[in-house]
Amino acid sequence: MGENEGMDFETMHDRQFEELSGLLDAQRMKALQNRLEEMNEFDVAEFLTEVDTQRMPMVFRLLSKGKAAEVFANLEAPEQELIINSITDSELGAIIEDLYVDDAVDMMEELPANVVKRVMRTATRETRNLINQYLKYPENSAGSIMTAEFVDLKKYMNVREAIARIRRIGEDKETIYTCFVTSADRKLEGVVSVKDLLLNDDETVVGDIMDTNVVFCMTQDDQEEAAEKISDYDLMALPVTDREGRLVGIVTVDDVIDVMEKEATEDFEIMAAMTPSDKPYSRTGAFDIWKNRVPWLLFLMLSATFTTMILNSFEEALAVQTVLIGFVPVIMGTGGNSGAQSSTAIIRSISLGDTEPADVLRVVWKEWRVSILCGVSLAAVNFVKMLLVDRLLMNNLDVTVTVALTVSLAIVLTVMFAKVVGSSLPILAEKIGLDPAVVATPLITTISDAVSLLIYLEIARLLIHV
Amino acid sequence: MGENEGMDFETMHDRQFEELSGLLDAQRMKALQNRLEEMNEFDVAEFLTEVDTQRMPMVFRLLSKGKAAEVFANLEAPEQELIINSITDSELGAIIEDLYVDDAVDMMEELPANVVKRVMRTATRETRNLINQYLKYPENSAGSIMTAEFVDLKKYMNVREAIARIRRIGEDKETIYTCFVTSADRKLEGVVSVKDLLLNDDETVVGDIMDTNVVFCMTQDDQEEAAEKISDYDLMALPVTDREGRLVGIVTVDDVIDVMEKEATEDFEIMAAMTPSDKPYSRTGAFDIWKNRVPWLLFLMLSATFTTMILNSFEEALAVQTVLIGFVPVIMGTGGNSGAQSSTAIIRSISLGDTEPADVLRVVWKEWRVSILCGVSLAAVNFVKMLLVDRLLMNNLDVTVTVALTVSLAIVLTVMFAKVVGSSLPILAEKIGLDPAVVATPLITTISDAVSLLIYLEIARLLIHV
Repeated sequence: MGENEGMDFETMHDRQFEELSGLLDAQRMKALQNRLEEMNEFDVAEFLTEVDTQRMPMVFRLLSKGKAAEVFANLEAPEQELIINSITDSELGAIIEDLYVDDAVDMMEELPANVVKRVMRTATRETRNLINQYLKYPENSAGSIMTAEFVDLKKYMNVREAIARIRRIGEDKETIYTCFVTSADRKLEGVVSVKDLLLNDDETVVGDIMDTNVVFCMTQDDQEEAAEKISDYDLMALPVTDREGRLVGIVTVDDVIDVMEKEATEDFEIMAAMTPSDKPYSRTGAFDIWKNRVPWLLFLMLSATFTTMILNSFEEALAVQTVLIGFVPVIMGTGGNSGAQSSTAIIRSISLGDTEPADVLRVVWKEWRVSILCGVSLAAVNFVKMLLVDRLLMNNLDVTVTVALTVSLAIVLTVMFAKVVGSSLPILAEKIGLDPAVVATPLITTISDAVSLLIYLEIARLLIHV
Repeated sequence: MGENEGMDFETMHDRQFEELSGLLDAQRMKALQNRLEEMNEFDVAEFLTEVDTQRMPMVFRLLSKGKAAEVFANLEAPEQELIINSITDSELGAIIEDLYVDDAVDMMEELPANVVKRVMRTATRETRNLINQYLKYPENSAGSIMTAEFVDLKKYMNVREAIARIRRIGEDKETIYTCFVTSADRKLEGVVSVKDLLLNDDETVVGDIMDTNVVFCMTQDDQEEAAEKISDYDLMALPVTDREGRLVGIVTVDDVIDVMEKEATEDFEIMAAMTPSDKPYSRTGAFDIWKNRVPWLLFLMLSATFTTMILNSFEEALAVQTVLIGFVPVIMGTGGNSGAQSSTAIIRSISLGDTEPADVLRVVWKEWRVSILCGVSLAAVNFVKMLLVDRLLMNNLDVTVTVALTVSLAIVLTVMFAKVVGSSLPILAEKIGLDPAVVATPLITTISDAVSLLIYLEIARLLIHV
């Protein structure tokens, strides 16, 4: 870092990229190769993504064998495909053998079938079998994100032997810092960290210092569960066992970050009435976006038929008291927003493990009190606003005290209904095994639209005798 | 794990808790103490949270000195306060000295002032100064989440000396796996992993194997930036420097998971028109929830005045063609949902670094095409539905072909407007330095409500001459 002293990381980073582009444009391939070799794989992958598609595969081929696989794992599917299509079978074979099996499986799931076929053909039989086995784990299961490259120790080894083993086999492992102690039949017996090994004497036996109280998950568990355990217990790696308790893989902390981002994105999408997409927005075409969005819009549009029916049945009354029409959107909007607040708060609280189905009464009681506070404040402001602004300032003499009272009362009741329904529906969804995110804003708004209208028009019938 | 073979983790976990409760109820304190000592700190903290408040501090005092601080760091503020109020100054002092400074600072930020005072009084002068220094870093900065407990090496050390140093000072460090190489004046010169050390000969010099291409951040950087770097570069720990390039702390990968969860929660809250809360839902009182929600509801309610004004200005026309009133919620709802889809997709894409302000034209062009696809499909279904269901099935003869055409045309234009505005506003917000999440569903819906109504009523004026 010497020559860049005092410069922030971003400036250094941009400068590095400019330098690399300069070398490429000047065709100084040897110098470019040396610079790329010094860089970390994430930056090299980022640089490759910025190079035009003609020159990109050529730049990739400058990388050394070891670096190539690391960089390859950091690329997105389209770039991976471009490279696969421009290298020889033996180059491709070498990369596949060097990839961690979870990265290879991720890639296979994204690539077109003909490319997958070629990749599988170039892999050794052993790798092919491993990849095929991993591809069989259900999507979003712990098995689908685990990797097979871990350090296994035996409990009769001493610290010196354990460290010697790590030094020997550690090079290709995804993490060496958590080591797994297994029996002769591959059953998981304990874990020991490199920290434990280093902080003990050479002669100490692994069996004496290993932790037998192992946090683990099984291949068929949801990936979110695996992520939660790593996060709760602050683990570097979580062992994954099959149904017989045999250690088959590990999930590492960097996978968790990806899982968490993916799950949060899915929640955002479902809560905005979209089918989750597994590609980022920038790589999804208009037609695919349409397919993810239109079924929900159709469903919600057709659900609004109830609201239409309610309005139609009050048609004649509204024709006489037309002033009431103008406040329909105020009441509906306030109801929708109130419900959205509650449902979002609860959905998030459920997904963070803060609220459970058993809390339903406590939550509804809290939202009930919040809804009275919110409803009364909003109604009071609305009452004053209607009489001061609508009646006095804008001289709309149809806005009488009774009309203002009708709208304000409807606001109180609508907010109370929306908040109680908005908070309880996600919990009920969780209880019956649905994703709580499904009963988010759009659905709550559709329900609260119809109910708020009924409330409003019934109050109007009582007070104004429409 | 021997005796629990084949059992899943959750069953073992529940059984363990039942056993602990049994020991506590039977007052078998010695046995309870032994069991707690074997458990990991997260589970002990979870167990303490489940014990009633009378007995909880007593159970906590069963823990050994080293375990106590670890468990303490895993507790929430209310439990921490309960414990602080029931232990002696010297016990408290010992815990504070054992805490990592980032955990101590987290705690200070949550505890009431009088408790903080007592904690500070029991700490040594050195710890007190360190905590005070950390408390000065702005909220949500990298400085506020970093910790001071890292392993520093010198570049002239060889591998044997480096490992000896790790063995000597590693016990109290938050991570030993990434070591930081600093100059005599504490400037960061490189990083070296324990993996690198273990995979090299004892005589190799640290300066020869360290990576000088260090990814780092500065104390005043946003914590989200630090989290992104750890996630992008798959780091265990990110070094944090001051403005002079001196290494002052590290951010570890487990902090990143917390930051990511917190930031996602904040986005959810802002997008549902709530002021973000720093306490989980279950620990926030009704009055605080009201304070976070009501200002936004008020703002949105008052913004709906525009919609009221538009409806009022068409009052007489609507009194004649009352059939049109019933479809107002269909058009508004469809507009709101369409806009919500686009704004949510873009806000999430921005926060994942997938979309940048420079992409605005590309995004609007894509949403334009999606909106035509969605608008036309919805309008077609609506047209058929109005004539088949509303007119034929429900015998509402006011629903003419012209009326159905009016509503359907309004749907197409509303969806197009909502999607283009919903996608471009978050990008513009990002461009001018606002949080894109602010222009989410509630605001977009309020805008699209007013505009969709104008579109609808203007089309009605043209086609039906209302």
